[in-house]
Amino acid sequence: MVEIAFRRAERTDVTAIVAMLADDMLGSSREDISEPLADSYLRAFEAIDADPNQLLAVMTEAGRVVGTLQLTFIAGLSRRGSLRGQIEAVRVARDRQSAGLGQKMIDWAVGQCRERGCAIVQLTTDRNRHDAHRFYERLGFKQTHFGYKIDL
Amino acid sequence: MVEIAFRRAERTDVTAIVAMLADDMLGSSREDISEPLADSYLRAFEAIDADPNQLLAVMTEAGRVVGTLQLTFIAGLSRRGSLRGQIEAVRVARDRQSAGLGQKMIDWAVGQCRERGCAIVQLTTDRNRHDAHRFYERLGFKQTHFGYKIDL
Repeated sequence: MVEIAFRRAERTDVTAIVAMLADDMLGSSREDISEPLADSYLRAFEAIDADPNQLLAVMTEAGRVVGTLQLTFIAGLSRRGSLRGQIEAVRVARDRQSAGLGQKMIDWAVGQCRERGCAIVQLTTDRNRHDAHRFYERLGFKQTHFGYKIDL
Repeated sequence: MVEIAFRRAERTDVTAIVAMLADDMLGSSREDISEPLADSYLRAFEAIDADPNQLLAVMTEAGRVVGTLQLTFIAGLSRRGSLRGQIEAVRVARDRQSAGLGQKMIDWAVGQCRERGCAIVQLTTDRNRHDAHRFYERLGFKQTHFGYKIDL
């Protein structure tokens, strides 16, 4: 039984996280994994890490980083002042996909949201990620919204 | 020419904001506008107001609050460490709808995101809000994602 664990990401995890973001059908053109890692990634890590409403997390298997996601806790007036948890940038290392680790990681993230007192957990996923749609629906998420983006 | 202005929401605006959240096909069953306003709204306002990455805004017309939205600035590693702006809880007062105010408010919000250095602005809207889909598409937003939620 290999040990799966979850923890807050540290600065030394950034390279492994960016590698997972890049090793993806959509991420490959959006990321830059050349070494040394672009300063913009490290600056972003510092901003995330300093924000008490952000939790950048890694999943480890026998100590190796095999997954990542980012949680943002968003206070709002809607729904009688509910806190909501938002999940972004979900990745499992390619060689560890289809082994149930994604589900473990999302279950963990939802648990973190519950502990913080969130009334709802939300996420968006690209229209083209058909496997992801089935995955989240299997975990009980409802596809209630359309997600819009505009590049600046 | 009636003066339209935008500003950060103050505690004294919360009642007007909640009234707009409630006066809506989906919000009516989710909000509680009884007076005095439920403490949960005021606690949520304090949390939003204390967070430098949140901007709860109101639009005023000749001094009257006629619109609201909430901006959240989310640092992330994705897209080379891009900051993203997220828009939630968009409402225009019912008697001032269809007068172009929604567009003015979204244009203002996108401008705020640009000033903060966001690379992208994102939002989700309920699948049943067909008018909203046309509205955001007209403003240049692309419906690239599906939005999933789970209630805790």
